[in-house]
Amino acid sequence: MAAFKLSLLILLLLFVVVPSSSVDVSVQKDPELKQCRHQCTHQTGFDEAQKSQCEQKCKEYIRDKREQERRERGGRDEKEDESHYNRKEREETRSGEGERVTERSPYVFEEEHFETSIKTEEGRVHILRKFTEKSKLLKGIENYRVGFLEANPSAFIAPVHLDADCVFFVATGKPTVTLLREDKRETFNLVQGDILTIPAGTPVYIVNRDENEKLFIVKLINPVSLPGRFEPFYGAGGETPETFYRGFSWEVLSAAFKRERDELERLFRQQKRGSIVKASRQQVQELSRHAEGGGGTVWPFGQETRSSGPFNLFRKHATQSNRFGRLYEANPSDHKQLQDLDVMITFANITQGAMAAPFYNSRATKIAFVLDGEGYLEMACPHISSEQGRRGSPWQGEKENRPEIQRVTGRLRRGVVFVVPAGHPVTTIASGNNNLQIVCFVVNAEGNVRYPLAGKRNIVTEMENVAKELAFSVPAREVDRVFKSQNEEFFFPGPRSTQQEEGGQRAYAS
Amino acid sequence: MAAFKLSLLILLLLFVVVPSSSVDVSVQKDPELKQCRHQCTHQTGFDEAQKSQCEQKCKEYIRDKREQERRERGGRDEKEDESHYNRKEREETRSGEGERVTERSPYVFEEEHFETSIKTEEGRVHILRKFTEKSKLLKGIENYRVGFLEANPSAFIAPVHLDADCVFFVATGKPTVTLLREDKRETFNLVQGDILTIPAGTPVYIVNRDENEKLFIVKLINPVSLPGRFEPFYGAGGETPETFYRGFSWEVLSAAFKRERDELERLFRQQKRGSIVKASRQQVQELSRHAEGGGGTVWPFGQETRSSGPFNLFRKHATQSNRFGRLYEANPSDHKQLQDLDVMITFANITQGAMAAPFYNSRATKIAFVLDGEGYLEMACPHISSEQGRRGSPWQGEKENRPEIQRVTGRLRRGVVFVVPAGHPVTTIASGNNNLQIVCFVVNAEGNVRYPLAGKRNIVTEMENVAKELAFSVPAREVDRVFKSQNEEFFFPGPRSTQQEEGGQRAYAS
Amino acid sequence: MAAFKLSLLILLLLFVVVPSSSVDVSVQKDPELKQCRHQCTHQTGFDEAQKSQCEQKCKEYIRDKREQERRERGGRDEKEDESHYNRKEREETRSGEGERVTERSPYVFEEEHFETSIKTEEGRVHILRKFTEKSKLLKGIENYRVGFLEANPSAFIAPVHLDADCVFFVATGKPTVTLLREDKRETFNLVQGDILTIPAGTPVYIVNRDENEKLFIVKLINPVSLPGRFEPFYGAGGETPETFYRGFSWEVLSAAFKRERDELERLFRQQKRGSIVKASRQQVQELSRHAEGGGGTVWPFGQETRSSGPFNLFRKHATQSNRFGRLYEANPSDHKQLQDLDVMITFANITQGAMAAPFYNSRATKIAFVLDGEGYLEMACPHISSEQGRRGSPWQGEKENRPEIQRVTGRLRRGVVFVVPAGHPVTTIASGNNNLQIVCFVVNAEGNVRYPLAGKRNIVTEMENVAKELAFSVPAREVDRVFKSQNEEFFFPGPRSTQQEEGGQRAYAS
Repeated sequence: MAAFKLSLLILLLLFVVVPSSSVDVSVQKDPELKQCRHQCTHQTGFDEAQKSQCEQKCKEYIRDKREQERRERGGRDEKEDESHYNRKEREETRSGEGERVTERSPYVFEEEHFETSIKTEEGRVHILRKFTEKSKLLKGIENYRVGFLEANPSAFIAPVHLDADCVFFVATGKPTVTLLREDKRETFNLVQGDILTIPAGTPVYIVNRDENEKLFIVKLINPVSLPGRFEPFYGAGGETPETFYRGFSWEVLSAAFKRERDELERLFRQQKRGSIVKASRQQVQELSRHAEGGGGTVWPFGQETRSSGPFNLFRKHATQSNRFGRLYEANPSDHKQLQDLDVMITFANITQGAMAAPFYNSRATKIAFVLDGEGYLEMACPHISSEQGRRGSPWQGEKENRPEIQRVTGRLRRGVVFVVPAGHPVTTIASGNNNLQIVCFVVNAEGNVRYPLAGKRNIVTEMENVAKELAFSVPAREVDRVFKSQNEEFFFPGPRSTQQEEGGQRAYAS
Repeated sequence: MAAFKLSLLILLLLFVVVPSSSVDVSVQKDPELKQCRHQCTHQTGFDEAQKSQCEQKCKEYIRDKREQERRERGGRDEKEDESHYNRKEREETRSGEGERVTERSPYVFEEEHFETSIKTEEGRVHILRKFTEKSKLLKGIENYRVGFLEANPSAFIAPVHLDADCVFFVATGKPTVTLLREDKRETFNLVQGDILTIPAGTPVYIVNRDENEKLFIVKLINPVSLPGRFEPFYGAGGETPETFYRGFSWEVLSAAFKRERDELERLFRQQKRGSIVKASRQQVQELSRHAEGGGGTVWPFGQETRSSGPFNLFRKHATQSNRFGRLYEANPSDHKQLQDLDVMITFANITQGAMAAPFYNSRATKIAFVLDGEGYLEMACPHISSEQGRRGSPWQGEKENRPEIQRVTGRLRRGVVFVVPAGHPVTTIASGNNNLQIVCFVVNAEGNVRYPLAGKRNIVTEMENVAKELAFSVPAREVDRVFKSQNEEFFFPGPRSTQQEEGGQRAYAS
Repeated sequence: MAAFKLSLLILLLLFVVVPSSSVDVSVQKDPELKQCRHQCTHQTGFDEAQKSQCEQKCKEYIRDKREQERRERGGRDEKEDESHYNRKEREETRSGEGERVTERSPYVFEEEHFETSIKTEEGRVHILRKFTEKSKLLKGIENYRVGFLEANPSAFIAPVHLDADCVFFVATGKPTVTLLREDKRETFNLVQGDILTIPAGTPVYIVNRDENEKLFIVKLINPVSLPGRFEPFYGAGGETPETFYRGFSWEVLSAAFKRERDELERLFRQQKRGSIVKASRQQVQELSRHAEGGGGTVWPFGQETRSSGPFNLFRKHATQSNRFGRLYEANPSDHKQLQDLDVMITFANITQGAMAAPFYNSRATKIAFVLDGEGYLEMACPHISSEQGRRGSPWQGEKENRPEIQRVTGRLRRGVVFVVPAGHPVTTIASGNNNLQIVCFVVNAEGNVRYPLAGKRNIVTEMENVAKELAFSVPAREVDRVFKSQNEEFFFPGPRSTQQEEGGQRAYAS
């Protein structure tokens, strides 16, 4: 009876308090939680144990509820996602001039947005949560996931297949990757800059044949049967990683293998070391001995015939290059395995103190992973304002629906992921201390055009003078004075001096 | 404390009253609202200001809640959308014979379903709300939007790009359209009937070079990165339209352009006249002088080579034509730019007093925009009944799941949009006063077949006699007497005489 | 006033009790319902009629609410779907060894998951509910539906078109199928094993020309305008089936057909016998006389030219065949009509007492329909655990997110449907009494590879010895002893003897 009363009480309270709860405070300070707990302690007829249990339930319930809200609404309310962050810090980054700046945007992801998929003494796999868990503004890339594999020298990653297509970009280390295809086994000795596509369902195992350097692979994952969801399936394994053979009964396994149950149990219970283990020098040699060269060693020969094999991004000519930066690109039209996924891969190395030109992609969405260095990004986004205009509660003031340009900013450092949707102007700026290195998976790449917004051949200089005058309400020569001063293309000197004087430096540089 | 009590009260009431609220009355008469307000005025301990504030919050909350419900459920409940309408009027259109008629259906849209995207003294852009906001029965065309641009003679529409592909149909006026493509600027002098596709991200500006006639362009919009959502991005602009360059900090802009902040601020704050402004005669001449001909002037030459350029619908042979009407069609197989979007465009001109044959599209969905004239449509829909059968609450009677044919009707006049899903039989009837002119975007067009349901070669006359007898339970000659009387094809004399005697005329004719 | 009070009470109670309601008990024992009713009977001021009405409303409300929850959440919570089942039975099937077995999984469907679409004295059409109503784990096949048509000898199925593409597999009977295509009528005399694709919108009628055997057609349905939803549209018909012509007003029909309303009313009201009726011997002969041969009679000649016509699965060479079973496959690359739908069709005949090898499809999802025999399936699924880990309420214990292999099992018998998603290891076992016959629609078939997990060329024997040792933590020869014993390919002797001794036999064999 008390249990029912408890439920009733907790829930009545919960229902009542919900809408007045401010969504952008942390769970610990959640007013709904506070109220729920308060009620527990003042409930007549509860002994101490019941009170304590009641409080605990409040806490779990609110935590789960918040989590569920985030999932269900797919981030309808971005502010909610900011609950992890210190609100004060956010406020400080607002400019004093009434600009609309969103530092903690739905487009930038840091360490806490990753889930640990695998963790052993020898390595780990981290996968970024589903994009739509953060915001429905990312609905368009709902079916893509990104993640990384980090493993020690000589680490072996157990045979596994995913219900997802997967693209590997080798950032550091020397992985020897073996794929079990329908009719043959293929092994590749990969190096830095190599790109390899692994079709869904293909069993793959990897060893880092480098004895000194850690392996670091950035992955783009494209699930094939559930939107944005996938799981690893370990065939060869035991208890950890758990082999999927244990999904069958011993009777069935015994018939399938024509072996006694005891023998099967012994085999399928042996492995307990996890899916990333240390290999001996001899084992590493054995695994890499018969490998074909990776994309690094064979390029540019034989690419045509081995269309599903790896290729190296850095062996290509840089498509943009000056002393302020360098850009490498692999287009779907050049590589069959990228074509199937409609993905372009780019690598930008922005010189310390320099910046990439503001630009936008006409129809592709960029998923960027920072590999090294520090810096920041600025992006113009009208969707956030429009999104916010939709929310409403009696406790908010009047809204207007007119789209406004919101500035999205984000500090960049190793491991940060950011998304730039189609049409959105963006720029990235390297700090004065290191080069900023970013690998990008550009999805929906077919027919995409990159439009530069400053420097050579920017969209405004392409306009007729009359259009400039009508659009800016000033004489065309004044427009040209601004849009034709910058002579560099794509990479420019960055806003260093300004930055040191003003807030930019304080906020972003390391 | 009073604030919390207020919240609590309002919410308790809200939760309690919700399910008993009838969904098809207007917000002003919403029982939930009424109850909420009542509680405010009878709340002890509130002074007048608090009461008033409480009532105001009730009103805002209910309005927002209703709006949100509509959005979230994606129109799960069509009736709700009818809250704008006078219920009495609706009842009157029901036939007295127990027929199931749905005049205000999820398939017909009028002025109030459009949102004003742009409005200046010189013109406006109106965009129809997302289809799924009205009903989840429109889920299949969720990613399409329609809208129109109306602008004065000599009006200039500022350079803009969308994160959406866009198809223009020129209904009136003489627009000169300039596209900034990756490597070149293209300008077209368009005329009535011209169709032009603008790929996502392409900056475009337009001037109406007609000095007397208003420009009217109907648009089909196909967002590329968010399902059914897009925004305009103005590069060249200032405060209104707001340039996206203001999404970057002054430090970054200063570095990108190699110009001082002061100069940039002056430039990017100048424009305040909005995105549609008046151009001088000289400016119009300048903008249209170097243009290629539009689809109207060059056809039929050079279509092959300029596959992404405009073409004119009226320069094609009418695919159906008699004295009761005329039909023009542009197929994706003939025009590359339509192929990419899988869209067919048709234009029907139904003679006054005539009607189009009942027919259905086998797999395409038709999004129709009435350009001129008056009339009405009738469509047969089993989905509405099935949809209604799913709803349930203790306050409704028993339902049965058996699909029933529902008659969807709608008055047609300039600016009305209607949707005809695949497989749904439909007919449109012109009033006795004007020709009815309709432009249609037919999406999912590949492999579509139009099946006529009366007149020459209708589906029933194609059947074997035995099938007719088994299907209708009458001798085949009785079936033929009905199905073989009409000799015309696709356009017929309409039900004028009948209409004048009965309700039809009263309800629909202008 | 009492009505309002009633609503208020019911709802207050409902809101309060919801979260404490265990979801896996049947509606009848729903605690929410119990509480609601209790309140009705103890409500002061209610007379008996009001009490009774109140209780009735509780019941209806809960039933509808449960139904709606199932629909809305798309089966977020699989347990809910188990409410039909006896929980005890389920528990018994759990092994005593701490294995994770899910008998009533989101992947197996029985009779109660079908909806009756048509039912007359001469036959019936049953359609499986939308997959996502059972679980969001089936989101990837949301737009596919399966169903079957069963009709008496000499039954005629009335002309109808669907807003869906449809694939027919003839299991028994001899259907003569007539399609009304754009420009011609096509009639096919089909036999067992024939496969015919019917494009969306194509009017089709069928007669079972067999005078003794029932017609049984399994259907895969792929809606073209609403995700996973479709309706039948009857042109030729009257009151039952209701002709869609009655979706038009009599005035419009009169004008369209140039006939008087009276005559039309007579015609369109005649048919009341339903959509499946008995045809006379003469009518059957008439309907089948001019038919082309089906896939069975003409193969292998002329397949190339009649690419949209039927073909017979059993006329192909079995791709796997030994004394334990036989597998037939029709690939999209061989048949244009399957290519458009990206569907492969397979037929497995597993000898009594035998089993199919454990295997997985690399990227395709299999929708299987059991045609004859009995047996059971075992499937390994990590997604279920992951799914369950996401749920949370204060009344559940702590969860962990680590994926675990869940064993999905299901009893197979005629009419059972089961789904095997991409990447999921699965095996099917025939009982000792009958051959187990299963037809499968394998969707997302392009580029799919079938990976065998036991028998010849299984994925583990393909690995290098070093990989085996590292993966299993035992010497490679021990791995080989298990994985190389089974010499058969794809079909093996089943676990009969074991089964008879243990629970398997008790649980599954007939």
